[in-house]
Amino acid sequence: MESKKNSSLKKETIQRIISALIVAPFVVFCFVSYQSLVGLVAAIVLISSSEFFFTTIKRINSWLAITYSAIVTTYPILYGVAFRKYPMELLSVIFMVGIIVALSKVRDREIITEVYFAYSVALVYISFLLSFFIPLYDVYGAAIALLTLTLSWTYDSFAYAFGMTMGKHKFGSYYSPNKSWEGFYGGIFGTFVYILIYQFVANSLFKSNMHITPIFAVVIAITTGIMDTFGDIFESSIKRHYNVKHMGNLMPGHGGMLDRIDGLLFMTPILYILFKFFY
Amino acid sequence: MESKKNSSLKKETIQRIISALIVAPFVVFCFVSYQSLVGLVAAIVLISSSEFFFTTIKRINSWLAITYSAIVTTYPILYGVAFRKYPMELLSVIFMVGIIVALSKVRDREIITEVYFAYSVALVYISFLLSFFIPLYDVYGAAIALLTLTLSWTYDSFAYAFGMTMGKHKFGSYYSPNKSWEGFYGGIFGTFVYILIYQFVANSLFKSNMHITPIFAVVIAITTGIMDTFGDIFESSIKRHYNVKHMGNLMPGHGGMLDRIDGLLFMTPILYILFKFFY
Ligand SMILES: [Mg+2]
Ligand SMILES: [Mg+2]
Repeated sequence: MESKKNSSLKKETIQRIISALIVAPFVVFCFVSYQSLVGLVAAIVLISSSEFFFTTIKRINSWLAITYSAIVTTYPILYGVAFRKYPMELLSVIFMVGIIVALSKVRDREIITEVYFAYSVALVYISFLLSFFIPLYDVYGAAIALLTLTLSWTYDSFAYAFGMTMGKHKFGSYYSPNKSWEGFYGGIFGTFVYILIYQFVANSLFKSNMHITPIFAVVIAITTGIMDTFGDIFESSIKRHYNVKHMGNLMPGHGGMLDRIDGLLFMTPILYILFKFFY
Repeated sequence: MESKKNSSLKKETIQRIISALIVAPFVVFCFVSYQSLVGLVAAIVLISSSEFFFTTIKRINSWLAITYSAIVTTYPILYGVAFRKYPMELLSVIFMVGIIVALSKVRDREIITEVYFAYSVALVYISFLLSFFIPLYDVYGAAIALLTLTLSWTYDSFAYAFGMTMGKHKFGSYYSPNKSWEGFYGGIFGTFVYILIYQFVANSLFKSNMHITPIFAVVIAITTGIMDTFGDIFESSIKRHYNVKHMGNLMPGHGGMLDRIDGLLFMTPILYILFKFFY
């Protein structure tokens, strides 16, 4: 007879597979049009920033946490829908709006800089960085954009697998002590293979016209490994400051949206730049 | 015989006039070419961010304070000289570089978010916002750019004069308790007059071809008053958190560079946007 622990682990795994099977097609479906892509980015920003603000400043002012989530979510929407050519202008306005809201609602010199930290980081790290998907999709198309989205998940999966099975030599990261070099190299290797497979399937089945050379695939894989790792450690450092294991609880016990995209946020702009210069 | 206080006040005033007479022509001279304008922006960013980092994180790590000042200063230089069309990409890279430096150099979960606060705010508020002078100069020319630079100083002077002489009704700002409505309206009025005089002189003496209508001048003046005030209060809130009267001491007793440009930083992007849409 199964132990109680085994059967709840099984149940959880089944739950995870089912939710992946539902969520994944939905996410892929959002790549069929520019507008749905913008909507997807906005939704992810809204969820992630809510988790972030609730972890960091909800105890200071919960109205502010909610309002800030809404404000930073306007960036991808306005950028994608109306101000595609004016990201800098938009970013500067939204930054100042958030600061002005803080000045009106928070009258406490002790904690005001913590509010500025939370707002600036959410606006730049979550909203601004994730919104690189918008020009990425616009210029390079759905296939490249979807590849970029799945690269982070792929790297994480391979890095986790290699790390669990043969991870002996740790990075020695103060904020993320469990990362190993074996996981890092294994993740890069798996990502490299994934890129080539993805391109083969995309070109054969969907006539995608992708033309990533093997060399470029290596560059992308290494970049993914490096940037995903830094993004992850950055988010971990903030979690350690607030003494939480996860930012959210989309998947109870396994973290929230921000925990899933922490590496993706650092990865996406760099990949966009790589495509811009070498593709 | 003059009292000691009177004579040192006189001496200080003479010092201020002399330094203004030396600094002002130098600053104006920087507007003769695009490259010197970029250099001026970079120099102001370097000085202001140094003051900011020394106030906020020098006690945590003085190497970091110096390095961060250099890193945020690369934004205007690279933007102006090499990546004029890629401000977003540049900003994302420099943001991530700063975060990665923090992760390597600061192994302390208690203070790491304060480092993130300082870096994000310096990068966005000082470096990114002031760099709007670069496209402003590039697109609208030296006359408009120099007008923008001097608008902040003009508003501050008139607001101070009106506030000192007839300032009865305070804003009630927690962070900046001495601001008065009389100063605000007087500052806007003086700014409005200044714009018209500036344009008259620029067009007559320098054939500038400026075409700011009186209505637009009113809009500019009001915008200047509002944004300059918010920028000032924002900077004041940070000073109150760190319990300092000034960020720097370029003019001993009268503050540093950042204290002079705090309003200008909020003002410049909004004016740039106004010119873009209405000029
Ligand atoms: Mg991650
Ligand atoms: Mg000021």
